[in-house]
Amino acid sequence: MTTQTALPKGFRAAGIAAGIKKNGKPDLTLITSDTDCKAAAVFTTNKVKAAPVLRGMAQLNSAYAKEMRAVVINAGCANACTGEQGLRNADATAQLASTLLRLNAHDQVMVMSTGVIGVQLPMDKFQAGMPQAVAALNNTSLADIAQAIMTTDTVPKSICRTYTTADGKQFTIAGIAKGAGMIHPNMATMLSVVMTDAKVSLGTLRQAVKNATNRSFNCITIDGDTSTNDTFAVLANGASGAKPSATEFEDALNEVSMELAKKIARDGEGATKFITIRVTGARTWDMAHKVGRTIATSPLVKTAFYGEDANWGRITCAAGYSGEDVNPDHMSLWFGGVHVFSHGTPTHYSDADATAAMKPVDVEVHLDLGLGEAECTVWTCDMSHDYVTINGKYRT
Amino acid sequence: MTTQTALPKGFRAAGIAAGIKKNGKPDLTLITSDTDCKAAAVFTTNKVKAAPVLRGMAQLNSAYAKEMRAVVINAGCANACTGEQGLRNADATAQLASTLLRLNAHDQVMVMSTGVIGVQLPMDKFQAGMPQAVAALNNTSLADIAQAIMTTDTVPKSICRTYTTADGKQFTIAGIAKGAGMIHPNMATMLSVVMTDAKVSLGTLRQAVKNATNRSFNCITIDGDTSTNDTFAVLANGASGAKPSATEFEDALNEVSMELAKKIARDGEGATKFITIRVTGARTWDMAHKVGRTIATSPLVKTAFYGEDANWGRITCAAGYSGEDVNPDHMSLWFGGVHVFSHGTPTHYSDADATAAMKPVDVEVHLDLGLGEAECTVWTCDMSHDYVTINGKYRT
Repeated sequence: MTTQTALPKGFRAAGIAAGIKKNGKPDLTLITSDTDCKAAAVFTTNKVKAAPVLRGMAQLNSAYAKEMRAVVINAGCANACTGEQGLRNADATAQLASTLLRLNAHDQVMVMSTGVIGVQLPMDKFQAGMPQAVAALNNTSLADIAQAIMTTDTVPKSICRTYTTADGKQFTIAGIAKGAGMIHPNMATMLSVVMTDAKVSLGTLRQAVKNATNRSFNCITIDGDTSTNDTFAVLANGASGAKPSATEFEDALNEVSMELAKKIARDGEGATKFITIRVTGARTWDMAHKVGRTIATSPLVKTAFYGEDANWGRITCAAGYSGEDVNPDHMSLWFGGVHVFSHGTPTHYSDADATAAMKPVDVEVHLDLGLGEAECTVWTCDMSHDYVTINGKYRT
Repeated sequence: MTTQTALPKGFRAAGIAAGIKKNGKPDLTLITSDTDCKAAAVFTTNKVKAAPVLRGMAQLNSAYAKEMRAVVINAGCANACTGEQGLRNADATAQLASTLLRLNAHDQVMVMSTGVIGVQLPMDKFQAGMPQAVAALNNTSLADIAQAIMTTDTVPKSICRTYTTADGKQFTIAGIAKGAGMIHPNMATMLSVVMTDAKVSLGTLRQAVKNATNRSFNCITIDGDTSTNDTFAVLANGASGAKPSATEFEDALNEVSMELAKKIARDGEGATKFITIRVTGARTWDMAHKVGRTIATSPLVKTAFYGEDANWGRITCAAGYSGEDVNPDHMSLWFGGVHVFSHGTPTHYSDADATAAMKPVDVEVHLDLGLGEAECTVWTCDMSHDYVTINGKYRT
């Protein structure tokens, strides 16, 4: 396994500033494959779905799904709560890219949007910017496109890895993601696109995307808000000639997705800490996942981490209101290596040790429910003064 | 209907400083009735229940429930996640009060606790403080006991109202409540005790308490964290001789409970705004309640109010992930009187008007789901920098 910065074979991309964001930063991303791609995606479960999500679902979640050639992503405007006009604007964006890329049909182009809800897309900016994006397309632009999809993210998030199949062939998977706020994915994160030159069937791809989502993006939370725009899409063009087995491909996609998801949790709005919550001893994975997510979402837990206050009762409390049938008399809890709670009663731990365990940037909490063998790990960040500042003034 | 400050007939109470809180503020409350009381309570649905909650449920939620004579409440220590020792300490607290009040049995005394989770009660402080509390008992101490149950509350919360029955008799209802943080009651708020001298049957009382809880405490949220200690208890000693009808009593208790609940929402940790969220056009009350609660819990909605940012997309987004089957194409949304969203599309509202509507301390949001006739109003506060400060340093 090696790490590189070029895109997988047959992909080109560009990230440019089209003036959609008021601050002049890069905001328009175009990704294209020289040949048709198998494509699969998961979308937000929010009942209020953005126009690009509704369009993407119609494109990909059908038995007659077309193969894809391009993805257009804009930051600065979510195109959500925008009615019929929003759907027309999403189509027009795809049409524009399709024409400039000389594709046969605009429905071979996916569109994604992120930004403020309730505002129509500025179509004039797309008209002016798209030709620039097409002109800038190249095969080494992973960092550029990771930058252009950012909103309140402080660092771009990308990954590129090459894998070798059992029969010695190599394939590459590269992905970008954005997160920061309104992150409590229930199907996928805000936006993530993964490209691969592996040759996989549509069935394998769809299954792998679903599995990877559950183990990665659905295991992170920033603030408990499930967005209107969450989309995780994977495009596979087969250009490497490598044909990984379903298991080989799933393992590779899981690894890439989990790394992207962890990057999102680490860069949550205002985050000062990266918190790993490992829930073991559950009856089922779903139980461990629900308990872990509930802990990771609690503002009281998250502010305690920010204050480096080993107030562990907030964690057992959150487990208790998760909706799962847990029992404090079976629970045990550790901060870092410090065992603070055992089968319903505080241990005789040292307060200094527990406090010291809160100090590192990376903190691990381990809650054993004492009920079974299943486990799940979720990732989140703390809740700081900056979270409030960022979200009190997001639009200004 | 008049307002007064004395307790209902036959009740005496005291709030004193027993040294349970490190800062020396009042922390021990004793309430007693000269005669036996019908009593009913609702408790937290959290699976991690504090010792006093487990004890209270055993006392009151049975067909053989005893009549009550006293309630002891301490602030500064929640007696939650404290195992067998915690249960023994709760019993010992009741026993101590029972002996000093010369009652027949310690199970005529309810105990309630609020404060840090995972720490055993300091029984020596109760031994020393309880005789002082007994000595201080009097009939005009409503303000004192409202003070002594506070934790991070900034103002004491109490109410006292006198009602007249259809046959011209008067009865009084007085109550105290504490809130501030870990407030997302799912049965009752953190702690609230209501006393009345009305003469009502146990059946009427239980039904009235359940109804009042749903319409009051279950309609507020501060931070989405359902506590281990939530308890709402009502004691009725009949000393006024007034026998209100079930409806008269329910209406009176609803009024008192809603006022206490709103006081809690208004004094949420770090709150700068009191937010009323009215959800109409729902298929059922449960649907309206779930949507309203989800909006009221969203950190993104709450920080937007703090920043006075009319970022209304966060409200429709939260409605969308509430789990209820809503549809943006049927929704309409108003800030104060400003109509910003109509049937899936932004209206042509003025940004200045929407921003101006966010400025008052009391802000009302009205979301019409356009699906039916049911409605529910929930109350919450904003999320400020001070919320983070308070909860990052709660134990220190």
